[in-house]
Amino acid sequence: MRRIVLKLDYIGSAYCGWQRQIGVDSVQSRVEEALLRLTGENITVTASGRTDAGVHALGQIIHFDTNSNIPVKNFMTGLNHFLPNDIRVLQTKKVSEKFHARFSAKEKTYCYVMYESEVDKSVYFNRAVRIKGKLDVKKMNEAAVAFLGEHDFTSYMSTGADTVGAVRTIKELKVVRRDGLVKIYVTANGFLYNMVRLIAGSLIRAGKGELSASDITALIEKKSKDAVREVMPAHGLYLVNVKYK
Amino acid sequence: MRRIVLKLDYIGSAYCGWQRQIGVDSVQSRVEEALLRLTGENITVTASGRTDAGVHALGQIIHFDTNSNIPVKNFMTGLNHFLPNDIRVLQTKKVSEKFHARFSAKEKTYCYVMYESEVDKSVYFNRAVRIKGKLDVKKMNEAAVAFLGEHDFTSYMSTGADTVGAVRTIKELKVVRRDGLVKIYVTANGFLYNMVRLIAGSLIRAGKGELSASDITALIEKKSKDAVREVMPAHGLYLVNVKYK
Repeated sequence: MRRIVLKLDYIGSAYCGWQRQIGVDSVQSRVEEALLRLTGENITVTASGRTDAGVHALGQIIHFDTNSNIPVKNFMTGLNHFLPNDIRVLQTKKVSEKFHARFSAKEKTYCYVMYESEVDKSVYFNRAVRIKGKLDVKKMNEAAVAFLGEHDFTSYMSTGADTVGAVRTIKELKVVRRDGLVKIYVTANGFLYNMVRLIAGSLIRAGKGELSASDITALIEKKSKDAVREVMPAHGLYLVNVKYK
Repeated sequence: MRRIVLKLDYIGSAYCGWQRQIGVDSVQSRVEEALLRLTGENITVTASGRTDAGVHALGQIIHFDTNSNIPVKNFMTGLNHFLPNDIRVLQTKKVSEKFHARFSAKEKTYCYVMYESEVDKSVYFNRAVRIKGKLDVKKMNEAAVAFLGEHDFTSYMSTGADTVGAVRTIKELKVVRRDGLVKIYVTANGFLYNMVRLIAGSLIRAGKGELSASDITALIEKKSKDAVREVMPAHGLYLVNVKYK
């Protein structure tokens, strides 16, 4: 028995999300189907975390155990042969059985991608979220400071999550403007349900002059799931990276 | 009778190209169908130029004449209602009948988009071309100088073009590396068939140390359609902008 880890990217638009669900198409089921075709084994894979319907990944990490003799690097070419073009295996590696894609994860980085336009652009369809009006990136970065560090982020989670406790540490949060896009990068030791999409909503309001860092601090301190209501759409969200040590 | 000009963007992956052809799906036919549904008129539109199958546009310019009374700005919202998500109208404007999307064009800018990777990435599927190995952007910019100015670009055109004469002036040509992508931007007073995709092929060879500026000058001076053979794939190519005055 070997434990293999894969790095994947995917465009989540065609899927109900990462997690396998009966009757709908998920990234997990596509990966498991490809593994079945490659190895002949019924393998259940474990990801660093779920991504919701429409959310993308540039670097999702998953692990699985196999009894097959396929050389490790052939899992990349082999699985890519059976996977659709909107899911790709980017890297493969053998790991010890102590490694767990979810529980060994130390921090994750997400990116939220937007463009400013009065009208939809086809090139960003399902890839970036349109914002009416201009965003002041400097104000967004000033407001972002309020999120840094360890906080109880109850105000920045949606109901429906199965996580215990809402204390998380945001290690980095920055907003950049590049090539016509505004991108929010956020790194934390863990994320609550919809946390990035709620943070993005507040930072957009900051970028329009509607919220300051102290307003955000006040929202965080409310520790109420009703405090923040602007959940930004899924299709602007990318899981960028998972760090393990 | 009014002449209206539209700025469009589109992802060309689903189409046989800009130009209407019987039995296949084209960007032009989609736009003309949307115009028929909006105005009730059978309108033929004229673009600044064709784009090939799989080629994208960030700023294609087209014009058409209409007898309808629809306010100019409503052509944007109205057409976008009938167009698929991979074609969007970004701007509308009334112009004089002297304006012609193709013949009035003074210069065009294309972008060729690549990423360096040993494996395909789903996020760039149909959007950017994968290059094995690393590109030396400095060497690419040094070699690019050979293309600047007025030349007979017979060596940099594919057969099958209906253009008369092969003399064109390249006004700007630069290569930039940004956010994991390598992009070639080229502006000229006109382009020959497959010219950008052939130039991209030579610049990629330059970026791998296989061609210098003087090699490219020698290739241009051959004035032979057999001189350059590396036609890069369509899906990395974007029509960025058309300039009219």
